[in-house]
Amino acid sequence: MKGDTATLLISCPDQKGLVAKIANFIYSNGGNIIHADQHTDFSAGLFLLRVEWQLEGFHLPRSIIESVFAANAKPLQAEWSLHFSDTVPRVAIWVTKQDHCLLDLLWRQHAGEIRAEIPLIISNHTDLYPIANQFGIEFYHIPITEENKIQQEARQLDLLREYRIDLVVLAKYMQILTPDFINFFPNVINIHHSFLPAFAGANPYQRAHERGVKIIGATAHYITADLDEGPIIEQDVVRVSHRDTVADLIRKGKDLERIVLARAVRLHLQNRILVYGNRTVVFA
Amino acid sequence: MKGDTATLLISCPDQKGLVAKIANFIYSNGGNIIHADQHTDFSAGLFLLRVEWQLEGFHLPRSIIESVFAANAKPLQAEWSLHFSDTVPRVAIWVTKQDHCLLDLLWRQHAGEIRAEIPLIISNHTDLYPIANQFGIEFYHIPITEENKIQQEARQLDLLREYRIDLVVLAKYMQILTPDFINFFPNVINIHHSFLPAFAGANPYQRAHERGVKIIGATAHYITADLDEGPIIEQDVVRVSHRDTVADLIRKGKDLERIVLARAVRLHLQNRILVYGNRTVVFA
Amino acid sequence: MKGDTATLLISCPDQKGLVAKIANFIYSNGGNIIHADQHTDFSAGLFLLRVEWQLEGFHLPRSIIESVFAANAKPLQAEWSLHFSDTVPRVAIWVTKQDHCLLDLLWRQHAGEIRAEIPLIISNHTDLYPIANQFGIEFYHIPITEENKIQQEARQLDLLREYRIDLVVLAKYMQILTPDFINFFPNVINIHHSFLPAFAGANPYQRAHERGVKIIGATAHYITADLDEGPIIEQDVVRVSHRDTVADLIRKGKDLERIVLARAVRLHLQNRILVYGNRTVVFA
Amino acid sequence: MKGDTATLLISCPDQKGLVAKIANFIYSNGGNIIHADQHTDFSAGLFLLRVEWQLEGFHLPRSIIESVFAANAKPLQAEWSLHFSDTVPRVAIWVTKQDHCLLDLLWRQHAGEIRAEIPLIISNHTDLYPIANQFGIEFYHIPITEENKIQQEARQLDLLREYRIDLVVLAKYMQILTPDFINFFPNVINIHHSFLPAFAGANPYQRAHERGVKIIGATAHYITADLDEGPIIEQDVVRVSHRDTVADLIRKGKDLERIVLARAVRLHLQNRILVYGNRTVVFA
Repeated sequence: MKGDTATLLISCPDQKGLVAKIANFIYSNGGNIIHADQHTDFSAGLFLLRVEWQLEGFHLPRSIIESVFAANAKPLQAEWSLHFSDTVPRVAIWVTKQDHCLLDLLWRQHAGEIRAEIPLIISNHTDLYPIANQFGIEFYHIPITEENKIQQEARQLDLLREYRIDLVVLAKYMQILTPDFINFFPNVINIHHSFLPAFAGANPYQRAHERGVKIIGATAHYITADLDEGPIIEQDVVRVSHRDTVADLIRKGKDLERIVLARAVRLHLQNRILVYGNRTVVFA
Repeated sequence: MKGDTATLLISCPDQKGLVAKIANFIYSNGGNIIHADQHTDFSAGLFLLRVEWQLEGFHLPRSIIESVFAANAKPLQAEWSLHFSDTVPRVAIWVTKQDHCLLDLLWRQHAGEIRAEIPLIISNHTDLYPIANQFGIEFYHIPITEENKIQQEARQLDLLREYRIDLVVLAKYMQILTPDFINFFPNVINIHHSFLPAFAGANPYQRAHERGVKIIGATAHYITADLDEGPIIEQDVVRVSHRDTVADLIRKGKDLERIVLARAVRLHLQNRILVYGNRTVVFA
Repeated sequence: MKGDTATLLISCPDQKGLVAKIANFIYSNGGNIIHADQHTDFSAGLFLLRVEWQLEGFHLPRSIIESVFAANAKPLQAEWSLHFSDTVPRVAIWVTKQDHCLLDLLWRQHAGEIRAEIPLIISNHTDLYPIANQFGIEFYHIPITEENKIQQEARQLDLLREYRIDLVVLAKYMQILTPDFINFFPNVINIHHSFLPAFAGANPYQRAHERGVKIIGATAHYITADLDEGPIIEQDVVRVSHRDTVADLIRKGKDLERIVLARAVRLHLQNRILVYGNRTVVFA
Repeated sequence: MKGDTATLLISCPDQKGLVAKIANFIYSNGGNIIHADQHTDFSAGLFLLRVEWQLEGFHLPRSIIESVFAANAKPLQAEWSLHFSDTVPRVAIWVTKQDHCLLDLLWRQHAGEIRAEIPLIISNHTDLYPIANQFGIEFYHIPITEENKIQQEARQLDLLREYRIDLVVLAKYMQILTPDFINFFPNVINIHHSFLPAFAGANPYQRAHERGVKIIGATAHYITADLDEGPIIEQDVVRVSHRDTVADLIRKGKDLERIVLARAVRLHLQNRILVYGNRTVVFA
């Protein structure tokens, strides 16, 4: 019904005629827009747009769409990216010892909820190797110490190149990436087990229990050089009470973590997220 | 910063070039789009769009914008409406005896959350006259019986004309409007004290208690000839437990009712709702 | 810290001294109460209590606790049940073709979130046999037709006896049980894919989409002879919008279904639920 | 049906027989328990209980209940308080300029949702005097500067004594109380306009917007010497998106603030809260 589509994500300084220009580009080449959602940030003077159109009947050969659009976009001083729905993105999942987010993502990919290939799992421990094995996914055990972190990150980057990875999902990977790594490979989504900015850092459930909060949360965000400070993609919460021990918070938190992370990964893979400054626009 | 704007709500059979045509109409006349949100319903083959642009710098004189756009829209077989942010809509609130939704709407209008004039309150009882009096709003007591309903609705319609009312809000008005009335005046929002379609009809809290549900809700919807079956605008819910009596459900429900109704009224007044079939698109 | 405990669930006509009597029974035998939660339903004149105490230091031999308490409870015309935390309940999971609730329950049992043995999976299809096999659980394929339902239910009851099953969980089992079956084996929890009583019966997501609701839900309830009318244990909801197709509702609903079902099963296995009339008291 | 009741809130070091002792005290004096809810905090070795019983038929004269129970409680090293449902608590509301929480509390008191007398409003500004006047409540304008704070707090304490105030509700009172004040009068509930501990301190909505969170919250808590660090009573949240400006966050936050504060005040007035350490047990 919908068929294959192209999706453009674009942000640029606001000016008159931007929607018209982009819509004309698509229409004059025979495309039918099926989703357009535009946001203007007045304080930043910024225009942000997601537009998706059907490729059936689109006259431009696939190979030149980008370069033709680039010519159009040049005067706009825009940042933009173009995505085709028949190009399946490749995802690497990084884990430590906890399995709930990993299993959840693999199940969703299996069930068709997440459209991606997952050829690679990296862990600083070996605990989750059996899951990788069961799903027929390559598993690399890359232990991290303070001393070897730089060289292990080089190995990790090599693997991302080798497996042509588009997105890294930190599915309870309990190591901090260096700013250098993030510079080389910025497409990294992390799940933090608290309602950021509350309880940033270590042991959020323990600290939430001590503080006596009545609601706990989880946060999926892009990784930046600033730990736990990257652009937030999605958050959700659940009620807790005085009856809940730290173990109960951890248990309830796991349900949040896997759902929030899965939503964020799905939004990213559907090209629904534009990052600007330290914020995200989510065209949901 | 944002200044005065025009907002177009439009739905029509889907075809190529619709976004381009509308964006060109705005751009060629000097308008700057600040919000565009488009939805395609594939099963209905329907294109639905909300687009809002700044009037500053727009070349077309206000008086002819509609007729010029009408000429453009004619070949599209579209249903559309055009709204200007500097035209403040006029709202009548209808009540019976309960004051929570009325007070809430009046407070929100006062606080600037709801941008409307509220010159008219109609009730089938006199209980809430003091509130109308306190806020300096005309209050009409129009009691309804089975016998007088037709002629009283005629009076009500007269008042809506006299006060040039754009929207009627049933803020716990416990009478059913006739299909004839709705035919004459279709812009009516109602708050139903249940999570429709659960507990449609009378005494929803009593029935929710008997059924032992763990969550109750409220629903704001447009009134149609089919009681409690009109297009849903907004819903929300709250948890209840075995400790909650019917009185507790009513109390908790009141908070839902006023918030859900206020959200729906605000969305309508900001021209963010398109109705098609028995559904709404909410461009929130 | 907490050690092994006994839990008493009791309901009886309200009268003075009930808490004292039960607390004295426990104290006089050396037990330390660690959880007591009492509810009075005034309209039913009913006293309902959950009380849990530590078995360490409890003087009564395990084998006679029930009979001693029975003597105490006799004059109260009470319904009651006694549970020991070191007796691990045995659960059978019934499925049709969808795997998300089954996998979720098995993962939770594995992770220690649900304390139960799961020796038996029954399905009217063979699709989920590989999962049973992977987890080392006996799988019985019992296809159901209108003609064979009675005799197949006899087989199912035989299996429940053979495997000494305490609780049946219908984890998306798309067949209706006969009143006779439920008479023989009343401990059955079902997950219904709607916010009951809305969209009881078949195809709830399709109907929710047609109705244009803004929130969908899921309901875990005990099975009674009245289809979809049994006592509700737990419900939860998630927001949807005009952008969500039926397929999206199904996807979002799956997350609700597995979480709501898991919560209900956990509450049941922790002996936190008392059923009276068609309602539940959940001592959460 | 329920009639007048007594409610005991008690916490003490855990030991065997506590429920029995307290239940026996009530039963032996002819009381019928209608609510008992007990919590054990194992890490603190603490027993916490709320028990409510009907006064009809209770043999002890009202005037000596406290002293008789005190004799019973002495060996338990307990902290406890006794409350009678026919004693209506007296509440002072403190405000600055924002009216939403004040109006909401006054409406709820009027509607019978909050059972209290509200004889006193104190403000450091005069803006809300008309509301006090309209409701016939004494209004004291007590402006605060760095220089006069100590002596103004003395005036405030005098007023609390004069009006025999049991509870102070800071309903958007934008001044910090000194530790000395809190020492003299510890029963103070505050509403903080963020999901604590996120965005403690000033301008939480501005900071939430800058951080790009997807959910905002509000927190009702008891005031302690540590600003924004007191025991949390209730929290709630609402979704926000990239479309929400700071003004939208403030608007959405107001709905949270008034609901969360009202729930906390109601729980306190129903004697459902026990504070221990920096945490609350809420017997809801």
